[in-house]
Order: sequence, then structure tokens, then C-alpha cells
Amino acid sequence: MAGMRHVTGWAASGPDGPLRPLEFTRRDLRPDDVAVRVTHVGVCHSDLHAVQGLRPGAAPLVPGHEFTGEVSAVGPEVTAFRVGDRVAVGNVVDSCGRCPSCLASREPYCLEFPQLTYGGVDRHDGTPTQGAYSTEYVVRDAFVYPLPEGLDPAAAAPLMCAGVTTWSPIRRAGVGPGQAVGVVGAGGLGHLAVRFAKALGAEVVVFTTSPGKAEAARELGADDVVVSRDAVAMAARAGSLDVVVDTASAAHDLSPLLRTLRLDGRLVLLGLPERLDVETMALLGRSLTVSGSGGRDETREMLAFCGEHGIGADVEVLPLAEVNTAFRRLAAGDVRWRFVLDVAA
Amino acid sequence: MAGMRHVTGWAASGPDGPLRPLEFTRRDLRPDDVAVRVTHVGVCHSDLHAVQGLRPGAAPLVPGHEFTGEVSAVGPEVTAFRVGDRVAVGNVVDSCGRCPSCLASREPYCLEFPQLTYGGVDRHDGTPTQGAYSTEYVVRDAFVYPLPEGLDPAAAAPLMCAGVTTWSPIRRAGVGPGQAVGVVGAGGLGHLAVRFAKALGAEVVVFTTSPGKAEAARELGADDVVVSRDAVAMAARAGSLDVVVDTASAAHDLSPLLRTLRLDGRLVLLGLPERLDVETMALLGRSLTVSGSGGRDETREMLAFCGEHGIGADVEVLPLAEVNTAFRRLAAGDVRWRFVLDVAA
Repeated sequence: MAGMRHVTGWAASGPDGPLRPLEFTRRDLRPDDVAVRVTHVGVCHSDLHAVQGLRPGAAPLVPGHEFTGEVSAVGPEVTAFRVGDRVAVGNVVDSCGRCPSCLASREPYCLEFPQLTYGGVDRHDGTPTQGAYSTEYVVRDAFVYPLPEGLDPAAAAPLMCAGVTTWSPIRRAGVGPGQAVGVVGAGGLGHLAVRFAKALGAEVVVFTTSPGKAEAARELGADDVVVSRDAVAMAARAGSLDVVVDTASAAHDLSPLLRTLRLDGRLVLLGLPERLDVETMALLGRSLTVSGSGGRDETREMLAFCGEHGIGADVEVLPLAEVNTAFRRLAAGDVRWRFVLDVAA
Repeated sequence: MAGMRHVTGWAASGPDGPLRPLEFTRRDLRPDDVAVRVTHVGVCHSDLHAVQGLRPGAAPLVPGHEFTGEVSAVGPEVTAFRVGDRVAVGNVVDSCGRCPSCLASREPYCLEFPQLTYGGVDRHDGTPTQGAYSTEYVVRDAFVYPLPEGLDPAAAAPLMCAGVTTWSPIRRAGVGPGQAVGVVGAGGLGHLAVRFAKALGAEVVVFTTSPGKAEAARELGADDVVVSRDAVAMAARAGSLDVVVDTASAAHDLSPLLRTLRLDGRLVLLGLPERLDVETMALLGRSLTVSGSGGRDETREMLAFCGEHGIGADVEVLPLAEVNTAFRRLAAGDVRWRFVLDVAA
């Protein structure tokens, strides 16, 4: 159609095959739309899962929901952005704006379901959304965030999902000096959780199943590293933590982690096994919650904090054309700590 | 031994047999001890469970941990009580006083384990504690509470366990006008939870498995009653409650209850199945916690609130000698809503 924007992306056509280049179109700009020339997009575990779970009717699928780039065009009603601005976009690109969750700027919990950056459905025209493993993205201005000066766009891309997903529960727990924070899993989310909690002044303990990650976790700033299969080391941490942010997606026993919490402490799950099985007494005086991503307010707050403290993700940058290498290595756990695809390379 | 206090109680000698009268002694008063002539003692589900689970070495066991009475003697250092004062005692009769839980007046979470009214061990002399199904109890003054004027001692006895156990999570959730509270189970704990939440100004929904309890729940003040096996009625309540206080001790599916909660809502379990099995997504943006009883500050606050609002339990009073009838009927669910034993009858 006339007016549509031609872009090139990398798409999956089924759960097993490699991603391949795909020419497709994005909508012509609505009055409040911003077009973003994508420069860097993070590779999230959920991208891998989305491809592995791809149903035939949903193909082709272009993944990618944490990205940075430059504004390439704006709709006539957009006042907050100009062409050339450095910006970032995350995994929610629209929401109803009227429900209690949206009114509280908790858009990932929109009661009409948030519009996801890919694999979702546009609220206005009903078309499927396609992600940012592509040269350009078109998005409502309310879900575009200015990238603070001084932040490297490659290191900043993972802030938009891995970052804000850990920032939200850490902030909501009121983490600060005098508090102790546990982080389960040293990975894409976990390494940012450690940086945030340290920069907020807390003591940080990393729980990992891999003794080999201990040194890397200490380099990130962890004050202590506990191998979670070591029952004695776990018991030594009983009752010592205010909040534990659990980023591990593989099934694991939550009860020993709950026991590391103080009275009124909370275990926040970000990785998502299908069911939870917990010893009742491990929950006595402690709470368990599953957290989604952060909303618009929290995203802006996190980006400002990262700008101030010079926080970015540790990334390995590959050209977009090497996305299949990134997927293969991510599936094998061979990354420290996040792959970012360079779209212009 | 000379100086010891001779009392008569009703004791279990094993898990199956009836309770029988038992003559035994209580310690001579320490400087900070109060002796209480027991007039009324509530029959808690946990009394039944304690007897059913009685191990041979632990017999005889005198149950009873929510009671009212009059001060019959005081130790030389006791200044807050005088002989003849109307008082109440609950399920914790001592604690370390130094750990973070005790310093926060959360004595039921004492890190050295709270000293229980019966089935526990005295912190000072190592003797087993025996409960208030008996003519007199001896207890450290810090764990004795003045009974507010106007409260009937029979209706007040269950406040000391059933009451404060529901009061604590309701207050900690900040329940008040404009909030909606769910109460699972119309029973000894549940009926007090309904009264507290209503008196605090909240909307109250009772969840019950027994359609026959609907009218009684409405008489207690419930604004709505939902039969929890009715999936349609449960779905109609999705996302509507700020906190759900779950008093049901039988195993039940928590996921539908979690879905009745708003964003940031919490499900507080007071009944205690051994393990919890929950759908992960039902916990998204919601929390699950297991709550113990309230501490000294919360107990005083609850008693003052009950005095002000004229709140007591609905009780059926039986003479202490009919304790076995009370146990049999409680096991059959034949009580509205709490048995209280009259010790003087």
C-alpha cells in the first residue's frame, strides 16, 4: 500500500528452522507515531522461547523487544521527539490507558492486556506486531523513551527488558542502604539486578547453580556468592535477606530460597516455570510474588538512574545477520551476559 | 514441691482416647509472673490437631491457648496487674525479647521460637507447658493483656487466637474504607475476620464451599458470598479484592483465589496445608504469604478495637467437663462459630 514503510527484518518461519531475512512493511505513521531506525536490539531468552513455540499460523515472526535507535520520522501530533533523537523502546508498545493498572503506570499489567512489541496485535488496526530484529520500528510516542546522554546504545538496549524487569521489583521493595538483596541466576537479568542493587547501596548475594560463575558475579559487585545446591551455605544465609529476585527460568525448589528471607521478606519470581510447589512453612512470615515488567514511569526512572550511574548491560555485539549464532549460543548458555544485534552492521 | 500451685485440668493421654481430668502443679510465681484463674477458654482447631497428633512421650497434654480470667496472684515485680483484674492470654506466653522479630513486637516469629501456651517448653526451667483447659495458668506479665471493659469474657476468649491471627494480616494490609477484603471459610477465624474488616470500613466477600453458610455469612456482615466451587461466580470476582484472608485448613486450589485479587493484592494463608501448589501466572502481580499470629502490640490494638466496637466471637459455651463433646462436634464442623469452655461451671 502507498505510504507504508518498507523494512528488512530477520524472521522465523517455524520452531526449528533458522531465522531468515524478510522484507515487510510497517504502517504509515499515525498522528502520534514515532518511526525509529533500529541500531541495536537485545537477544532475550523469551525471543528464543517465542521461536521455539511458534505455531504455523503465527509465522513469519520477527522477534526483538529491547532496542535502541534514532528517530527517523514523527507523526504530526508528536511533540516530545524529533528526527535524530536517540531513543529506546521495550516490550510493551501500547495499552488501554484507562484501566487501574494503566492509570498507575503499570502498563505491563493492563487489564485489556498490553500490546507486545512482537507477537501481539495492534490495538487499532488488528495487525500482528513484528519485532525489532529489523531496520525500522513504528510505535506510539507514549512508549518511546529518550536515551540518556552518555549511555552506549548497545549496552542500553537490554535495559529495556532485562533491565526494567529487575528494576521494578527492586524499587518496589524499597531497596537501599542497610538492606540485603539476593539475586538468583547470574545472567542477562541477574547481572543487571546486581548492578542496580549495588548502586542503590544494598548488600548483594548472588545464588547460582554454577560454581564457575562465582568470580564473574563478584566482579559484577556481588558481596557474596552462594552455590544454591550447597545446603550448608544456603542454611548459613537463613533469615538474612530483605528481598530475593529470582531470574532463573529452569524449575527449581523455592523453599530454600524462601528461608534466606527475613520476616516480611519477599521472593520475586521473574523466570516462569509453569507451576510452583512450595513448603507452606517456608512461606511463614514471607511472601512470594511473580513480577512482570516495569511500566512507563519505572522505565523512565530506570533510564535516568542508569544515565546517572553509568549502568549498562555487559553485552557481546554481533551483526544482525549472525542472529542464528546468537540463538544457538544463548541456548547453550554461552554468553556473558547478553547478546545484542547490531542492525546497521 | 512446696510453693507449687495445684490445679485441675483436662488432659489427653493419647491421640485417640477422650480427655480426662488431671491434677497437676504450676510453678510458684517468679518475680514477673501473674497467676490467672481461668474462667473461659476457646476450643481451637489446633487443640484438636495437637491431641490427634500426640506422641507417647508428650502425654499427658492439657490443651487451651485462648483464654480469659481473673488475676489470682502476682509476683513481687509485677506492677501492671492486681489481683481481681480481668485479663486475657493467647498462644504465646514468652519469647527471647532480643531478636529482630521480638524487637518489632512480632513475638510469634521469635527467632529462638516463641514459647507456646501448651506443648511448648518453658524458657527458664525447661518444663513442658500445659494449657488453659484448667483452673489456673501462670504466665510472665508481659504476655498478659487487660480485658477491655464491656467485653464478655466468654466471647473474648477466642479473640486471643482466632481473633489476633486474622487481625494481624488485615491490619498489615492496611484494610479500610474503599478496600475490598475476601475471607475464605466461615468459621472460628473467618467470622472474626468478617467483623474486623467490616468494622474497619471495607467491603467483605466470603468464600465458602458450603452454600448453606451463605445466609449466616451475610448476617455476620458479608456484602457478598461466593461458593468457591462455582467457577462462574469466582470468575465474576476476578481482579476485585485487595486482600484475601484464607482460613481454610483443608487442601484447596489457591489459583482461583489468587485471581480474585487486584494488582498488588495479597493472599494470606492462615490454615496450613503441608505444601502449596500454585499456577505461576495466577501469582503475576500478586503475592502469597503465610501468616502466623499477631504479636503483643497487635494483640493490645485488637483488644482495644474490639472494646470500642463491641466485637466478640459468636460462641457456644459448654462446661469444661464437656470438652469431649466440643471436640467431637468441632471435628464434625458442628459449631457456630467457636466453642468456649466455662471452667467454673
